[in-house]
Amino acid sequence: LTCKMLRAIVLCLFLVILWANDIMGKSKQHEETGTYLPTWDSLDKRPLPSWYDEAKLGIFIHWGVFSVPSFDSEWFWWYWRGTKQANCVKFMEDNYPPDFQYADFAPKFTTEFFNPNDWADLFQASGAKYVVLTSKHHEGFTNWPSVNSWNWNSMDVGPHRNLVQELADSIRNRTSVHFGLYHSLYEWFNPMYLSDKENGFKTQDFVKTKTMPELYDIITNYKPEVIWDGDWEATPEYWNSTYIPSLAVQSKVSDTVVTNDRWGQGTMCKHGGYFTCSDRYNPGTLQARKWENAMTIDKKSWGFRRNAQLADYLTIEELLQTLATTISCGGNLLVNVGPSKDGTIHPIFEERLRQMGQWMNVNGAAVYKSQPWKHQNDSRTPGVWYDLVLYTTNQGKVYAFVFTWPSSGILALGSPLATSDAASVDLLGGESDITWEPLSPTGVGIYVPVIKPSTTSAKWLWVFQLTGFVNAKATQLKG
Amino acid sequence: LTCKMLRAIVLCLFLVILWANDIMGKSKQHEETGTYLPTWDSLDKRPLPSWYDEAKLGIFIHWGVFSVPSFDSEWFWWYWRGTKQANCVKFMEDNYPPDFQYADFAPKFTTEFFNPNDWADLFQASGAKYVVLTSKHHEGFTNWPSVNSWNWNSMDVGPHRNLVQELADSIRNRTSVHFGLYHSLYEWFNPMYLSDKENGFKTQDFVKTKTMPELYDIITNYKPEVIWDGDWEATPEYWNSTYIPSLAVQSKVSDTVVTNDRWGQGTMCKHGGYFTCSDRYNPGTLQARKWENAMTIDKKSWGFRRNAQLADYLTIEELLQTLATTISCGGNLLVNVGPSKDGTIHPIFEERLRQMGQWMNVNGAAVYKSQPWKHQNDSRTPGVWYDLVLYTTNQGKVYAFVFTWPSSGILALGSPLATSDAASVDLLGGESDITWEPLSPTGVGIYVPVIKPSTTSAKWLWVFQLTGFVNAKATQLKG
Amino acid sequence: LTCKMLRAIVLCLFLVILWANDIMGKSKQHEETGTYLPTWDSLDKRPLPSWYDEAKLGIFIHWGVFSVPSFDSEWFWWYWRGTKQANCVKFMEDNYPPDFQYADFAPKFTTEFFNPNDWADLFQASGAKYVVLTSKHHEGFTNWPSVNSWNWNSMDVGPHRNLVQELADSIRNRTSVHFGLYHSLYEWFNPMYLSDKENGFKTQDFVKTKTMPELYDIITNYKPEVIWDGDWEATPEYWNSTYIPSLAVQSKVSDTVVTNDRWGQGTMCKHGGYFTCSDRYNPGTLQARKWENAMTIDKKSWGFRRNAQLADYLTIEELLQTLATTISCGGNLLVNVGPSKDGTIHPIFEERLRQMGQWMNVNGAAVYKSQPWKHQNDSRTPGVWYDLVLYTTNQGKVYAFVFTWPSSGILALGSPLATSDAASVDLLGGESDITWEPLSPTGVGIYVPVIKPSTTSAKWLWVFQLTGFVNAKATQLKG
Amino acid sequence: LTCKMLRAIVLCLFLVILWANDIMGKSKQHEETGTYLPTWDSLDKRPLPSWYDEAKLGIFIHWGVFSVPSFDSEWFWWYWRGTKQANCVKFMEDNYPPDFQYADFAPKFTTEFFNPNDWADLFQASGAKYVVLTSKHHEGFTNWPSVNSWNWNSMDVGPHRNLVQELADSIRNRTSVHFGLYHSLYEWFNPMYLSDKENGFKTQDFVKTKTMPELYDIITNYKPEVIWDGDWEATPEYWNSTYIPSLAVQSKVSDTVVTNDRWGQGTMCKHGGYFTCSDRYNPGTLQARKWENAMTIDKKSWGFRRNAQLADYLTIEELLQTLATTISCGGNLLVNVGPSKDGTIHPIFEERLRQMGQWMNVNGAAVYKSQPWKHQNDSRTPGVWYDLVLYTTNQGKVYAFVFTWPSSGILALGSPLATSDAASVDLLGGESDITWEPLSPTGVGIYVPVIKPSTTSAKWLWVFQLTGFVNAKATQLKG
Repeated sequence: LTCKMLRAIVLCLFLVILWANDIMGKSKQHEETGTYLPTWDSLDKRPLPSWYDEAKLGIFIHWGVFSVPSFDSEWFWWYWRGTKQANCVKFMEDNYPPDFQYADFAPKFTTEFFNPNDWADLFQASGAKYVVLTSKHHEGFTNWPSVNSWNWNSMDVGPHRNLVQELADSIRNRTSVHFGLYHSLYEWFNPMYLSDKENGFKTQDFVKTKTMPELYDIITNYKPEVIWDGDWEATPEYWNSTYIPSLAVQSKVSDTVVTNDRWGQGTMCKHGGYFTCSDRYNPGTLQARKWENAMTIDKKSWGFRRNAQLADYLTIEELLQTLATTISCGGNLLVNVGPSKDGTIHPIFEERLRQMGQWMNVNGAAVYKSQPWKHQNDSRTPGVWYDLVLYTTNQGKVYAFVFTWPSSGILALGSPLATSDAASVDLLGGESDITWEPLSPTGVGIYVPVIKPSTTSAKWLWVFQLTGFVNAKATQLKG
Repeated sequence: LTCKMLRAIVLCLFLVILWANDIMGKSKQHEETGTYLPTWDSLDKRPLPSWYDEAKLGIFIHWGVFSVPSFDSEWFWWYWRGTKQANCVKFMEDNYPPDFQYADFAPKFTTEFFNPNDWADLFQASGAKYVVLTSKHHEGFTNWPSVNSWNWNSMDVGPHRNLVQELADSIRNRTSVHFGLYHSLYEWFNPMYLSDKENGFKTQDFVKTKTMPELYDIITNYKPEVIWDGDWEATPEYWNSTYIPSLAVQSKVSDTVVTNDRWGQGTMCKHGGYFTCSDRYNPGTLQARKWENAMTIDKKSWGFRRNAQLADYLTIEELLQTLATTISCGGNLLVNVGPSKDGTIHPIFEERLRQMGQWMNVNGAAVYKSQPWKHQNDSRTPGVWYDLVLYTTNQGKVYAFVFTWPSSGILALGSPLATSDAASVDLLGGESDITWEPLSPTGVGIYVPVIKPSTTSAKWLWVFQLTGFVNAKATQLKG
Repeated sequence: LTCKMLRAIVLCLFLVILWANDIMGKSKQHEETGTYLPTWDSLDKRPLPSWYDEAKLGIFIHWGVFSVPSFDSEWFWWYWRGTKQANCVKFMEDNYPPDFQYADFAPKFTTEFFNPNDWADLFQASGAKYVVLTSKHHEGFTNWPSVNSWNWNSMDVGPHRNLVQELADSIRNRTSVHFGLYHSLYEWFNPMYLSDKENGFKTQDFVKTKTMPELYDIITNYKPEVIWDGDWEATPEYWNSTYIPSLAVQSKVSDTVVTNDRWGQGTMCKHGGYFTCSDRYNPGTLQARKWENAMTIDKKSWGFRRNAQLADYLTIEELLQTLATTISCGGNLLVNVGPSKDGTIHPIFEERLRQMGQWMNVNGAAVYKSQPWKHQNDSRTPGVWYDLVLYTTNQGKVYAFVFTWPSSGILALGSPLATSDAASVDLLGGESDITWEPLSPTGVGIYVPVIKPSTTSAKWLWVFQLTGFVNAKATQLKG
Repeated sequence: LTCKMLRAIVLCLFLVILWANDIMGKSKQHEETGTYLPTWDSLDKRPLPSWYDEAKLGIFIHWGVFSVPSFDSEWFWWYWRGTKQANCVKFMEDNYPPDFQYADFAPKFTTEFFNPNDWADLFQASGAKYVVLTSKHHEGFTNWPSVNSWNWNSMDVGPHRNLVQELADSIRNRTSVHFGLYHSLYEWFNPMYLSDKENGFKTQDFVKTKTMPELYDIITNYKPEVIWDGDWEATPEYWNSTYIPSLAVQSKVSDTVVTNDRWGQGTMCKHGGYFTCSDRYNPGTLQARKWENAMTIDKKSWGFRRNAQLADYLTIEELLQTLATTISCGGNLLVNVGPSKDGTIHPIFEERLRQMGQWMNVNGAAVYKSQPWKHQNDSRTPGVWYDLVLYTTNQGKVYAFVFTWPSSGILALGSPLATSDAASVDLLGGESDITWEPLSPTGVGIYVPVIKPSTTSAKWLWVFQLTGFVNAKATQLKG
């Protein structure tokens, strides 16, 4: 045992102990018994739990202290104090005393009308299969009573309620919807984070005293089946970020938990349970890996904006078209709503969600558990997108999502080919066994039925079910 | 007649003139030169200005300090302190300090997002031809800087703006919409009013120092073309209420001003420019006098409710059906929206108003300037209502408002009779010259055209224009 | 005199009576049965009720919405919005949102610690014999639930209490102190007042609907024995101001009620029950009429100032010296304290009041019921002031108020002359029958006793009682 | 190198690293170069820096979020939520909405009138030689921008100022007063602390992430010369509490820094720089170790109470008597004032401080740098206490603090003995060389001089300087 060896041992042990802080310590038993190591190599090998791909539709909820100013967007604090964006600076000058600070907003986050059962019922009615709530956004305010965020959480100040717990309970008690949590790794103005950043992310004070224990806390207490993390500024090494998916995977939620790809600079679109790539990501082409299109009904913001106008909200047609293009290319759609500081989901959001649900009731067969088809959109008629649902038999059905009702009376599709004369066409929510004929040189012409406005349930976006037209296998996505 | 007697008389008359204070004084010249005396006999003889009957559609706006609690309804103060309605009492107990009073709400009526130009443009886009804003509701808070309501008006406390003026200006500068004002005669808790009431309305302190000068103020300054007054508790004599319509008629707005019928106990549905009879009045039968159906998009409240849900709002179909049944029986529809304390009209209201406007753009010919037809609803098919538009020729067109699209392909109408073979049928926003045939024993069967969902502008409620089917004169309403 | 004429007269008289509204009406009986007419000629003849002259010391209380900003002075509103005084404008810019208005302060006037019994006990302990509370200051906010000041009074907003009533009750139930009310005739920003002013005070809308009914209200309901009115801007004719003293005199408080001289331009120091002449009026010479020195313990303000410092408060010595110079010249001292918006009288005020009371307990014989002497201050030693107390015998005692303890051991007085060898000198709170000798050419030299600091009750300002030195009658003041 | 040895090494290193968390790490260099180890044995050996014993008088300042409710005491949060003391619970029920929490108070901690220069000048004028400000009280809110207390510090919420820095700068720039900081180890409701407590203080999460880094922060940044710590609930081992005095001693403030004895259960009155033993500790007998009497001018609270009354404040006589009894027995007096949430020190506090300063200007020779005498209080006359000031000569002067001015004219002292006929007596602020005579069997009778109230500077508590009466050495206290 030479001096040098001793020094080496000491160094090793020191590093191990640094890494194995108490959280890590607690998870040790999981790592030893589980299959996946906290490395991307290992984690990326894990198959995506099937429920997630089958779900297709989720609801994203951005709610926090930013819901109090409820102006510009949930990035209000950053735009006001960070980039000093003119409209945000002016809004504060016009409406608050000069030395009002962001933390002074917190007591006004009252949530007096928050009824989690109503929310749960609404999400169920929307046809969504999972929900992702901001447990904490970049402002650092936690929507549960985090011991690592004393007096900057929803129990100590503002709501005086455990918002995460209440919603989780209602979702689980009343619905079949999966419950997930968004969690921002970084916090714009947390002095610990800023200090680590100033140190070139060589120190991890913030990670050890805030991010890690809080992630551990929400994973073990609320067992989210989606962990929707967010950072792109620091390295995954700084965040210890492979550790968390690993922890989630090994923990009691292991079989069903899903994580995204935002675990630090360079991970987005590269590592993780599924890819998000960018906000409102919708590539329009088939992707090799499972991905998610996280987007907003209010086109300009994820958080509620008190002065949003009707034109800022997507119409139901736009929303459903986004759904179709997303799932045709292998994505899930995560539709965002921003509740108010009062605790309500405003009627315009409720209307879009219920319209979606109404449409899903009619067209769900074309959505849930579907897979991308060989073709994503039609070669002949623009605005027609496809997917496929496989049955236990060896023959699937193809679904054509038609954005515009054919004014000519005939819908001409270039991509499907009839495999036999027994091939048939149905309009979901409408007529079955619709007349069709082969088109030359290729394709099929469908004689669209007469729509009776008051009674039909086929509207906004029409789905034709093609049986016997399948000439290719579904595209299997890598989870 | 001695000198002394003469002096007594002179003195008396002098005092009378003193008493007939400046309001009365200023109006004297009008009374003398005008046609109508401040008596119901005289006033009821005045023809209703034609614009009002031709307008058919107006927007009602309930906005005030009640928009701050924004709970239960605009009667919140009364339900909380007057009738002690359980939900209102509990709401206060749960959310405010024990001795919080209604007046303490006023500084929170902030209206920071109020943009009157946006409102004006929205009302124009809705197809409405007049707007009625609460200048003052039963709470007594005036939305203009009333000198008779110091520190209980929108300039001194809360908005610090002249809401009436700002909206009037925007409406007049940007639109062709007529501007009107709602004004509550009585005020739930005004101690002057309560004292007069306690005196069996034998004293008129409240009338003289509040109601009269404020009505004079808003009439002369803002020249509303609708004066929508409200009381049913005290007598018209107490209110001097014939005086005000008279004043309005004689004032500079005289040619076009319209007043309603709520000028004190016993006047409703009996005297005034037009009848309102009750809230959401919609008799379903032809009325002898011009009337108005004042109703709400939020079924439960005129003021904004922060916790209203989608189911509380009328759908566009319900709204248009109400319009049709109203105008078919000679009424105007006054559709209410409740702006928020922030100064916004929430998107769900905006959506309904813009949908209405969209429909009006297609179907306006059947609405504006129309008159009730001989038949109000069809003798054969329920859910079909009629009206008539007269042209300069001796032959009008009949419009059939169809609530449900005929699933059989044929619309069977019992009331219209073809006057010649040249009679024709068109669908507004759709096909012209639609095939029809006489029905036996009477009526007409219309072969409804094919609707092409994506492109048609005929939706929600369909209007068939019948030319050459008229067999009766329009019903002339007494203004 | 035809029937028609008779009817006209009857109608006229009826209207006259209507005009002579209840205030005027109710006072009629008093005028007819009382001695004093509502003219200065008549009112100035009324003798001042004796209690007032005998009292010598009163407490003035300035309390209102201005106690909320509690900055600069009770004229804060005027300095901020009227003259735009730099420090007030800056204070608002630094601490409030840009469009914050004065009325927005009212809900913060909370008075949660107001205990009127404590106040009453403190005033009693101070040795004061009367108290004058601002029922309403120039801001127009009434400290009682005035029906003429709806939602701008202490019951509707802020305290939610009847401050005038509560204090009146405590004063009357627990003390022998007389209760009085300050009432500002004019109101800086009342639009009614401003309108009358714009009309050159030719109109009296403000007087009729605000000042008169409110004065009538407080006089009849709270029966103040001092009515401390305030205006100097408009004429007494505008204010109908002779009417009010007259009303007070004729009302049930008639025997003891006292009014001041601020009843409009030109009345100050000329008409009324006693003269105030100016703020902090202390002429230093004997006055022909009874007068009052209304002054403040906080030298810079009548209302409470949150940022006042010790140097801003009078010391007990300065306060007692002001008392001595005031009563020596025939005045009463009205010492002002400014309570906080919390409802407390701050300890520094309490200390001054209790110190005054402690001194009064020792020296009261020299103060209460005293009269000015022939000499006001000594001809030989500066800082010695006199008064006189008359007894039932024909011989009074003269009191010399000594500001500075004579360092030489002998107090040399030039003004008193011994009327006999039996003349004697006592120190109030100290030795009796002190050695003295005549001085040449005139006066008396008093051998001042030894003061024992821990035990003596003679301190701050020493009073020597001279018996048998009187050579002149007391000065009778005209009330 | 056996396996066992390896394990031992690993264990050792593990423990070292746990203990040597990063703060400890940073201090390593100090420990190595300094004289004192972080053990009580070592630390207790350090002599008390002389300035502290010589100072005699300090000012304690309790200021924090508790200054907002400003009710009951600075323990308001604990009494309201912890012990549920009736008056505190009722206060909240009466004045706040039901779910209002303590953290909601923070934005109201406005300090708009805080002028640190004014404070510094006042403390200088008070005669105090050191100041101790609450950097953080048990509520956990830090008065400096602690990175370990994000959004629960005076920069992020409320004042938006660094209160510690501002006061430190003013004190140092304008005065010769030493600047010290109070720091509460424990925090009533900090969830980290509560969790460690639940674990029987076996975990130290709170210590590592809050207490240690914050103490390190304030010591290195603000260099307090007094570190006034506070805990008695957990063990010193839990707190690592020997570490901090050690750190302070080794840091740049090392020569002059003083710490108290509240470093965890069992340390009070046993270990540390000086002893505090209990609040308002004043044993009345000579102590072996240097101690401090921390007490309040408001008898009932350390924090400001808005509803405190005059009787709650000590008089200047009581305050000075406490000073005399304290320093006679070897203590320092730490007089507490509670500033308001506005940032002011109320005039009643200012008055006491300035009175103390006035007295110190006259009697400072008897106070500063004095030492306890052989006798603490007189054997003959109660209310006479002594101390001693040593000069460079071998002969000191004894000072007798006399609470009550002798009414007999002779002050009879039993304890001093004249050492020669040349012994002399002076009254500080008064006559010199006062006649005296020996008393039988022992003692001295002093013929007290005549006091001239207006001019003398000897008041409240009189100090006689005895020269040549000393018959014993001063008592040397162990620092």
